[in-house]
Amino acid sequence: MDISAVNALSYEDFVNIFGNVVEKCPLITAAVWTSRPFISLNALEATINEFIDALPESGKEGILRCHPDLAGRDLHSGTLTRESREEQARAGMDALSSAEASRVARLNEEYKRRFGFPFVICARTTDKTRIWRELSERCQNARAAEMARGIEEVKKICRLRLQGLVLSDAPNKL
Amino acid sequence: MDISAVNALSYEDFVNIFGNVVEKCPLITAAVWTSRPFISLNALEATINEFIDALPESGKEGILRCHPDLAGRDLHSGTLTRESREEQARAGMDALSSAEASRVARLNEEYKRRFGFPFVICARTTDKTRIWRELSERCQNARAAEMARGIEEVKKICRLRLQGLVLSDAPNKL
Repeated sequence: MDISAVNALSYEDFVNIFGNVVEKCPLITAAVWTSRPFISLNALEATINEFIDALPESGKEGILRCHPDLAGRDLHSGTLTRESREEQARAGMDALSSAEASRVARLNEEYKRRFGFPFVICARTTDKTRIWRELSERCQNARAAEMARGIEEVKKICRLRLQGLVLSDAPNKL
Repeated sequence: MDISAVNALSYEDFVNIFGNVVEKCPLITAAVWTSRPFISLNALEATINEFIDALPESGKEGILRCHPDLAGRDLHSGTLTRESREEQARAGMDALSSAEASRVARLNEEYKRRFGFPFVICARTTDKTRIWRELSERCQNARAAEMARGIEEVKKICRLRLQGLVLSDAPNKL
């Protein structure tokens, strides 16, 4: 799909295709449709990032709270979004030993109790070892730093999801 | 559920219960959790409305674009949210004659072509006759007026969904 095809989409098709580039936040996708035409995929991504940056702090926390836990309840009950399921599987989160599963559950709870939002990491650009280290280390961060870090990870996830949707069948067109 | 029970919910339970009070916008529910404790159901509703009002115009358009058409594709394919399905059924949208169905489809398309977002109305406080009249009349409005009107309807829908969730088992507690 080249960018002219993206720009030609009705808002309904645009939201159907791109509605989950920010996890469970089709509102953001639906909002940026207003800014079309986009000159490139990067311009679409930048518009999404600007929308996120302009939200009040509570809105950024809201975005984080729409994310599932890593190796958490949604993975075990099969209720992850397709995108999250693929990303968590790629990082090995669906095949943890029982000791690893207990450890991640404990750290997730500690993180959420401390910050009031879940630990968010772009699983596709990391691996299990680094996820364990980050989950332990980031629990120690100040809240404001950790919120900024979570939003950075949301943007990385968004970038990869966008690329996956747009570039898969036309790698050189955007 | 009384307001102290609402205030005691984890963000995950809060989003699970209230995540669709604004259609397909759990981001909003997840954001307002930051403002707890709420002194009443009205205070929770007011916080949601303030969050909506503070969004840029594109964000308000985004909210409208997350809504399904009345008697549209999602109703016919069974992909409406539970809340929308109940509301549309109550207004008789699931039992239209073929002439009515054609007319609403034509007016929905005209409305979306003109405004770039769907016709939104609080179906639970109206009836089929009034919906037909409004759909015809509102197509003639100026865009800014119609966006403000759509957002008013979103807030009415939100109020009734909140009341349905909170008051159903404890009518006098909030």
